[in-house]
Amino acid sequence: MSASLAISLDAMGGDNAPEMVVRGADIARRRFPQCRFLFFGDEAKVRPLLDSLPELKKVSTLRHTVSVVTMDDKPSQALRSGRGSSMRLSIDAVHNGEADAIVSAGNTGALMAMAKFVLKTMPGIDRPAIASFFPTLRSESVMLDLGANVQCDADNLVQFAVMGNVFARTVLGVREPTVGLLNVGSEELKGHDAVKVAHGILRQATGLPGKFIGFVEGDDITRGTVDVIVTDGFTGNVALKSIEGAVKLYSHFLRQTFKSSWMAGLGYLLARPAMNALRARVDPRRYNGAIFMGLNGVCVKSHGGTDAFGFANAIGVAVDMLTNGTIEKMRQDFATMTASTGPQAAAL
Amino acid sequence: MSASLAISLDAMGGDNAPEMVVRGADIARRRFPQCRFLFFGDEAKVRPLLDSLPELKKVSTLRHTVSVVTMDDKPSQALRSGRGSSMRLSIDAVHNGEADAIVSAGNTGALMAMAKFVLKTMPGIDRPAIASFFPTLRSESVMLDLGANVQCDADNLVQFAVMGNVFARTVLGVREPTVGLLNVGSEELKGHDAVKVAHGILRQATGLPGKFIGFVEGDDITRGTVDVIVTDGFTGNVALKSIEGAVKLYSHFLRQTFKSSWMAGLGYLLARPAMNALRARVDPRRYNGAIFMGLNGVCVKSHGGTDAFGFANAIGVAVDMLTNGTIEKMRQDFATMTASTGPQAAAL
Repeated sequence: MSASLAISLDAMGGDNAPEMVVRGADIARRRFPQCRFLFFGDEAKVRPLLDSLPELKKVSTLRHTVSVVTMDDKPSQALRSGRGSSMRLSIDAVHNGEADAIVSAGNTGALMAMAKFVLKTMPGIDRPAIASFFPTLRSESVMLDLGANVQCDADNLVQFAVMGNVFARTVLGVREPTVGLLNVGSEELKGHDAVKVAHGILRQATGLPGKFIGFVEGDDITRGTVDVIVTDGFTGNVALKSIEGAVKLYSHFLRQTFKSSWMAGLGYLLARPAMNALRARVDPRRYNGAIFMGLNGVCVKSHGGTDAFGFANAIGVAVDMLTNGTIEKMRQDFATMTASTGPQAAAL
Repeated sequence: MSASLAISLDAMGGDNAPEMVVRGADIARRRFPQCRFLFFGDEAKVRPLLDSLPELKKVSTLRHTVSVVTMDDKPSQALRSGRGSSMRLSIDAVHNGEADAIVSAGNTGALMAMAKFVLKTMPGIDRPAIASFFPTLRSESVMLDLGANVQCDADNLVQFAVMGNVFARTVLGVREPTVGLLNVGSEELKGHDAVKVAHGILRQATGLPGKFIGFVEGDDITRGTVDVIVTDGFTGNVALKSIEGAVKLYSHFLRQTFKSSWMAGLGYLLARPAMNALRARVDPRRYNGAIFMGLNGVCVKSHGGTDAFGFANAIGVAVDMLTNGTIEKMRQDFATMTASTGPQAAAL
């Protein structure tokens, strides 16, 4: 029998909270019977939802909270005045040892600021990063940073490479992940200083698990050229959203195509079951759950606009990280890295 | 009758040169009867191709060149030792007034270095940018820079906004183009200094045609939220390639979908004419032709791996810019901008 895992949930975060959070937890409960849930939220709103789901209620605890961090709150503001918020108290639960992981669909910046403040950054890591995995031509890859750090130096990028590597091994199940640094195409314009220096450090690094294959370009992201794409938070955020936009554009064109003639319409009817499978395959809810990597604890950010199915997947990411010991392995790898590349990096 | 336009062609640039270049010119000849072509390349290779296309030959001139800039040549190296190359001499033809525009499918970095050296940057512009247009949910938009400048300051971005605006008006035919600055999503992490300062300048600028709508995100690129997307060359290059990669991924999934059952296969057969139209719609060859914006002359870079159809489209971009007076309008706008925002920008 699996060990019991306690998942702390910010019941008030997200566009459709708390209902989406509670129903998402109920889906997760069926998938992960080893989980218990600790809800932080407005009792008047959350209690009736739990009452309507007796199986979930059996494995849940509810803590009443009085305030909510809104989507418009600045991180500094949330940090100062959000001590009694559902977001803050759900993070505190991980720090206190009451919970093993925290999942929230609330304000990203506030969640990162609070998680950093409460859980602290892991030794050897200067800045946490936001990571996410997505489908590729080959299988699945992980990319980081997706927006926590709009400017990154070479050391940050090197640390992201190690973090992504651990994630690919523990959650994606790749034994020896390949790692690539995102850069521009033209040979002659090979990027700015941060990527060049990071390239040099990773090229020389020894004793790290996985394989650094050098620079990759934008189209390598979905090609699955590497298991781990490393980049700064500005570029990573733009790249991921560009891909999401392109998928929407293609889907839109495809819908128009099937409507363009009666033959095409009939073709769609015949292909519909297969097309539904395709839709499920590129469904962003399947890949919901961005990981705040580099903290002393598992913190997963769900998309704010997702539904119960998507939120359950974000809980699934947290469960996978806990089950596979991602945090412990990351701690070990950073100890190794500090020993092997730390002085090297410093010397560059 | 249209005025005659002379197009200078680097016959030796591109994976399938010179055949792709000559056949591309022949397609362009039929579309643009006002064009004459000036080929620069190895006579032994180009002459037989022209001989096989008598209609093209009638409107063409061939200049023998002895050397070729390769894809591996560094820009500085090409600039030093490439004086007799097909690329360099085809650019010189624009500077000499023999040709109105130059199109090459050769090495991007070398082409930019040579074009900058020979044609010089337009007054008021610090750095030229690479621009390209692409389909969106709404119509078509243009994005720049796509890789000429991996690091950009606020002034560069402001200049790109003006250049993109001129392109949208003259080539895309938008009377009052909307302009957006590419940034990351999270409210609290609103980008680095360059985008913030550029935002301030563009927000206050008066007397510029078009409308600055502020920050946009990665998914706004293909959504068509604005006519002109402004960004640094690193981000722009990654974003455009990420979109290309996503389209390939979706196409691949779609092929697998149609093969997944006999019903889906039959559906595909019925929808095939419509699917072919969709394929044509997202065909990258349709959008081939990146513009080197900000130079005293029209210089268009074709994708190196394209075919004759794609190369003809790159010639089409040059023809559109010439026909619509893009360079002259850009010169006027920069004169206006220097008068209206120049001192403002300097004061920030």
